[in-house]
Amino acid sequence: MADASSYTAPVDDYTFLFGEAFGLDLVARATGGELTTEDAGDIMAGAGEFAASVLAPLETVGDRVGARFQNGEVILPEGFAEAFQAFVDAGWVTASAPVSAGGDGLPGAVLAGLGEIWNGSNAALALCWLLTVGQIHALDAVASDEIRETYLTRLVSGEWTGTMNLTEPDAGTDLGAIRTTATQREDGSWGIRGQKIFITWGDHDAAENIVHLVLARTPGAPEGARGLSLFVAPKFLVNDDGSLGERNAVTTVSIEHKLGIHGSPTCVLAYEDATGYLVGELGGGLAGMFVMMNSARAGMGFQATGIADRAYQQAAAYAADRVQGRVLGRDGRAPIAEHPDVRRLLLSMSSKIFAMRALGVYTADLLDRADQKRGAESDPSLAALAEFFVPILKGWTTEDAVQTTSEGIQVYGGMGFIEETGAAQHYRDIRITPIYEGTTAIQSNDLVGRKLIRDAGATAEQLFTQIDATVAALRASSEPVAARTADRLERAVAASRRATADLLGFAASPRDAYAVSVPYLLLLGTLAGGWMHGLAVAAVGAHATEEPMDASRLTSADFYGAHHLSRVHALAETVAAGEIA
Amino acid sequence: MADASSYTAPVDDYTFLFGEAFGLDLVARATGGELTTEDAGDIMAGAGEFAASVLAPLETVGDRVGARFQNGEVILPEGFAEAFQAFVDAGWVTASAPVSAGGDGLPGAVLAGLGEIWNGSNAALALCWLLTVGQIHALDAVASDEIRETYLTRLVSGEWTGTMNLTEPDAGTDLGAIRTTATQREDGSWGIRGQKIFITWGDHDAAENIVHLVLARTPGAPEGARGLSLFVAPKFLVNDDGSLGERNAVTTVSIEHKLGIHGSPTCVLAYEDATGYLVGELGGGLAGMFVMMNSARAGMGFQATGIADRAYQQAAAYAADRVQGRVLGRDGRAPIAEHPDVRRLLLSMSSKIFAMRALGVYTADLLDRADQKRGAESDPSLAALAEFFVPILKGWTTEDAVQTTSEGIQVYGGMGFIEETGAAQHYRDIRITPIYEGTTAIQSNDLVGRKLIRDAGATAEQLFTQIDATVAALRASSEPVAARTADRLERAVAASRRATADLLGFAASPRDAYAVSVPYLLLLGTLAGGWMHGLAVAAVGAHATEEPMDASRLTSADFYGAHHLSRVHALAETVAAGEIA
Repeated sequence: MADASSYTAPVDDYTFLFGEAFGLDLVARATGGELTTEDAGDIMAGAGEFAASVLAPLETVGDRVGARFQNGEVILPEGFAEAFQAFVDAGWVTASAPVSAGGDGLPGAVLAGLGEIWNGSNAALALCWLLTVGQIHALDAVASDEIRETYLTRLVSGEWTGTMNLTEPDAGTDLGAIRTTATQREDGSWGIRGQKIFITWGDHDAAENIVHLVLARTPGAPEGARGLSLFVAPKFLVNDDGSLGERNAVTTVSIEHKLGIHGSPTCVLAYEDATGYLVGELGGGLAGMFVMMNSARAGMGFQATGIADRAYQQAAAYAADRVQGRVLGRDGRAPIAEHPDVRRLLLSMSSKIFAMRALGVYTADLLDRADQKRGAESDPSLAALAEFFVPILKGWTTEDAVQTTSEGIQVYGGMGFIEETGAAQHYRDIRITPIYEGTTAIQSNDLVGRKLIRDAGATAEQLFTQIDATVAALRASSEPVAARTADRLERAVAASRRATADLLGFAASPRDAYAVSVPYLLLLGTLAGGWMHGLAVAAVGAHATEEPMDASRLTSADFYGAHHLSRVHALAETVAAGEIA
Repeated sequence: MADASSYTAPVDDYTFLFGEAFGLDLVARATGGELTTEDAGDIMAGAGEFAASVLAPLETVGDRVGARFQNGEVILPEGFAEAFQAFVDAGWVTASAPVSAGGDGLPGAVLAGLGEIWNGSNAALALCWLLTVGQIHALDAVASDEIRETYLTRLVSGEWTGTMNLTEPDAGTDLGAIRTTATQREDGSWGIRGQKIFITWGDHDAAENIVHLVLARTPGAPEGARGLSLFVAPKFLVNDDGSLGERNAVTTVSIEHKLGIHGSPTCVLAYEDATGYLVGELGGGLAGMFVMMNSARAGMGFQATGIADRAYQQAAAYAADRVQGRVLGRDGRAPIAEHPDVRRLLLSMSSKIFAMRALGVYTADLLDRADQKRGAESDPSLAALAEFFVPILKGWTTEDAVQTTSEGIQVYGGMGFIEETGAAQHYRDIRITPIYEGTTAIQSNDLVGRKLIRDAGATAEQLFTQIDATVAALRASSEPVAARTADRLERAVAASRRATADLLGFAASPRDAYAVSVPYLLLLGTLAGGWMHGLAVAAVGAHATEEPMDASRLTSADFYGAHHLSRVHALAETVAAGEIA
């Protein structure tokens, strides 16, 4: 049986995506030629080696033992603190930080790949990295020089880790209901009081300090979200010389008993006049937090892809190994991977994973190109397109990846239901991804309300036009898969244009729009996945070799077209119906 | 928050299905007028009360503590043994047994409802009942008078429980690979040697004896499945006077650590020359076991429906209670159930559950009518139709019900990921249902290979013709939902006829057929679900009242049509593609 602790980073897929799939070297473009796809491949290979040897072996203990809470302290699973320290020492936190914050400023596309690798090898541990990087982005965007000097530098070095404190018992999706208060003291610092829940890696001993980024309400501030400001509150106060002082008045009350990602401590934190420092403008809390959240949202796409791929790798290894029954149309005893339905399950998984992975790279690269700090291209439609894809990447990837891990269980049959097999962990771990950092409904509201309706579908049409171009490119190929893919994409784009027009027609009856916004998001994600496969087919056709990897890309695209892209037609019908009153 | 231990049996839905949905009183037809829907409603209400007060409160402890294994003995979760005893004392085992076996012989449609109730209230405990009833059916079909007298009577009374021993480490789906042997002794009994795994309720102390029904190979028997015979092997040997003798040589080696249904002990059993008695003909083991399996397969449909409905009940209660954010198009603060997307999730769940429930009743009633022992109608096509629906009911219901419990988690947002909420248990528990009693692939192979291709689609066409009739009935109604439902069903039937023709076209290339047999099964299940809603709409239209329950049935049908039935079109495209080579 496949060893649940093994993990192989998908380096080949990433170098194909960086260097071929989009018809140019994304890495070279993003770095002005400083790095190329070849360099990025080396980085990915190095990350993959680290992930396989240090992170992946801890995934099982992370699940079985989990983070515990004893005597007011969080105890991480054995090996987690050392692994995170090794991760920091190897420079992987600094690698993820932008140059403006003192990091290596790797291109977004490469960071997407790294994000998948950390999450695929150990999703629970990767969350510590993910939230720290999210906070780095937020502080880099809005923090004063003093806070940058004291906190940002230590986050970028990996010495300290970061958390995101939004949710309260009565303020989940509705951040406007936040009740935690911050009152300014004479020395300019703020006293924070309140309770925050669902704080991922809210307490642990893997770093010497933890920096909490806290949304709180200041006295006299307006009601709702406009009254919220952002504060940093460290676990240990920081002396003027940068050394650590006494413990801040933020206490870990408990940790949650969760369905999955047991290795990641999810904390309830009590702020009892804890010392905090204002970040950015008074009342500008949400804007700052959104920088962190946007980073985290894309990160969820990479996390879901990583967990789904780990599930796939294990299921594929098991199916290649397990011999059972006579296989139809094959001579002699053959592994179950050759059974038509097991093959279907595996191709279903791998073709979705490629689509998700490719969309992650594409979106991350778009975000880079739209990022002014990086000396972006001047086209403002690029920024609109990038923002359009963030909720699609987050919403669609996580929803479909949940089902992918369920397929992984199915490959094993009865063994899939036994915890020791390891397949069930992925099914449990991944279930949080369509929830945190904004549920799929929140993503779809963002997509429809703030992105689709506001520009009357102009950005959506920009996407469709690009797909038209891919269809035209595929038509130029003599490859039968290219022709089939072009046919399917053409019909899917037509259905998507109709669905978009239907949705825009609901602008005057918003309940209709929001009752089908999730199906619409899934439709666009499914379509985008088909487009990614279309680009891959076109790229493979362009160099027209007969390598096995090329054949497998064609099969994957063909399968996605027949089994997944077809879903667009069902979803378009759903969207057309609006709310069922 | 909704109490995770509460449960309300869906009595109204069942009386609607028994008495109205199919245009006649199913219960009266099945019993020759001895019982009516009104009586059946009373039975369901009584069962619901028992389930709510005795079974449902134990579901949480069953999950948290689970069955344990200590010193060679299985220890059930606290309260389980007593609850099962109360279940027996209340006559619910005897109620499920056919008259020919000494049971009450309730109609299949009523047993479907009871099956849902036991599983919805406590799926782990219900498995003990389900397997016992399955064994009752198998022994009733093939056992000698002596075995009936010694074992069957004690199973029907509920004094003893039954298990099903098929699987071995190297013989799961492939029963032909079974290696357990049975050698006849001088006294006519058989000595059984081998190891069986995944034995549900294989050991426990909730009954004084356990009867194992074991597939084993006899000396000189042919290879493969034809060499298998069926044996009963009790945990305690039975003396000639019917009293219990010494412990048989069957030992519990261990129990499994599973993703869900923790309260149900899943055992590894070692047979070390254990005493067994032949059941039925030598070499006829599979035929006998299939009687049990067919009963268990339909039972899995009811189990999946029950778990999904429990998930729905809890999510709906939470959503009705939880106030969060401003609700679009509603004045003032409103519960999240009014948010368009939460409403979508709840309707998605409930409309699927109704379809599954109705298909369960329809299939169970068909099986009754086709059962010769019950003095069946002479139409042989009825038996073909009944057999056609068993794999659809099992395969489609379980697959879609898994997703239904995932939607249940989504309703809660972050709280859904916390185990204490209770939503996650359903998502874990239900994941076994598309696996055991034959995976979805096995169901689809049965459907396509043994039922569709053998009669060249005649039975499938019988189904489509019935749906045509429902479409015609809906056309006669002035209700707008009826018109929409007719339109959607008409298009779905057309797509299903095309998919059926496509699949039959693969008869010469079986790998193509079996590569899309699961999508085809899901297509037919989805279609059948839409048909059930169509029948409900027609039935509601027939009495044309304005009761709230009627309005909710129309909304449910309309929602199913727009959100679920539309999937038929995507699946038809998948089927047409055959295997992606």
